Amino acid sequence: MTPTITAFAQSPDRGRGLARDMRLRWALEEVGQPYDVRLLTMEEMKQPAHLALNPFGQIPTYEDGDLALFESGAIILQIATQHPGLLPDDPAARARAIEWMFAALNTVEPPIVARSMATITERDEPWYDARLPILTERVNTRLRALSARLGEADWLDGEFSAGDLLMVNVLERAKAMDMLADYPNLDAYVARAEARPAFRRAFDAQRAVFTAAMSG
Amino acid sequence: MTPTITAFAQSPDRGRGLARDMRLRWALEEVGQPYDVRLLTMEEMKQPAHLALNPFGQIPTYEDGDLALFESGAIILQIATQHPGLLPDDPAARARAIEWMFAALNTVEPPIVARSMATITERDEPWYDARLPILTERVNTRLRALSARLGEADWLDGEFSAGDLLMVNVLERAKAMDMLADYPNLDAYVARAEARPAFRRAFDAQRAVFTAAMSG
Repeated sequence: MTPTITAFAQSPDRGRGLARDMRLRWALEEVGQPYDVRLLTMEEMKQPAHLALNPFGQIPTYEDGDLALFESGAIILQIATQHPGLLPDDPAARARAIEWMFAALNTVEPPIVARSMATITERDEPWYDARLPILTERVNTRLRALSARLGEADWLDGEFSAGDLLMVNVLERAKAMDMLADYPNLDAYVARAEARPAFRRAFDAQRAVFTAAMSG
Repeated sequence: MTPTITAFAQSPDRGRGLARDMRLRWALEEVGQPYDVRLLTMEEMKQPAHLALNPFGQIPTYEDGDLALFESGAIILQIATQHPGLLPDDPAARARAIEWMFAALNTVEPPIVARSMATITERDEPWYDARLPILTERVNTRLRALSARLGEADWLDGEFSAGDLLMVNVLERAKAMDMLADYPNLDAYVARAEARPAFRRAFDAQRAVFTAAMSG
């Protein structure tokens, strides 16, 4: 059975790999699981058919036989549980890799998304110049802590795991805001992940959707 | 072995159960696992001893024998994996319960925390009155979707699970901002969870820390 994920028909990130289907594509490529993609317009995402799959009207979703899931973190945990390669076998190491998945999504991603959203939705507001440094500092607070923990290691805890996959995916949005330059070890960490063949295949696949939409 | 969690010595929420140790206490009470608590001052949270446990300098952490974890979502998943009672046995139902854990933490909590933080840190800013409705609408967007999905059900997907535990815990902060009144089914959902004996025991335990700090 080939699972099906959903993605934007026209991603607001213009194929830069910042939409949340990228992390699923990457996880599926890491474990060598082929997948189908169903593209959705913004309007289709608000229709009952999609809301039945994701009540919050977002992408991605994941359908595999009788199982339908939303939430990229839960989907990646499901993929990592069903296939070897994204979580260590040792129970304690496995719990720590899952800890980094949650850290990426609940501690590091929110301030990065908040700043990223503000640069789009609040740029013309009178308060933008006063608020931006506050938002920047909230991101840097997380990046400093993460950089200190990573140190000179290749990955967050031993071998590459789903925790690294989600953390790097979250950091890509900070990189897109030119916020990794002050953290050479985080910049190298992201580059190391981007060099993985699975990352490249996933990136090219999501990029091809954008390219096709542009030429279509 | 009795696990140890960390909590605020003086919680900024003044014992209202909004600090993130509450969700761990509740999960441990649900599965009947006794636990120890180590209280930390704000200053201690930034010291190397605590940063070794949580690089982001936050509470809670969880220590159980050789395993040390941070991130409340990961800790609850660990507790739910090690004890019966918080996740269904059926693999698909289990994956969906975990999906709701991620939905609580990654989709519903961020806009609620963003609004809650703004009411504290931005109240005196000149832009506060203009931004508050935007933040309110972001919360309502999530609450509307969640309310529509919950409908008349008691819990999000079958029996009470770790997904409900985290969702209710996240909704407590919306309730504290008087934002559940427009969603009678969500209000009843939270009340239903609060009536659970495990919730009461956890709430009373975190409340006792505040009461002791006040009288100490």
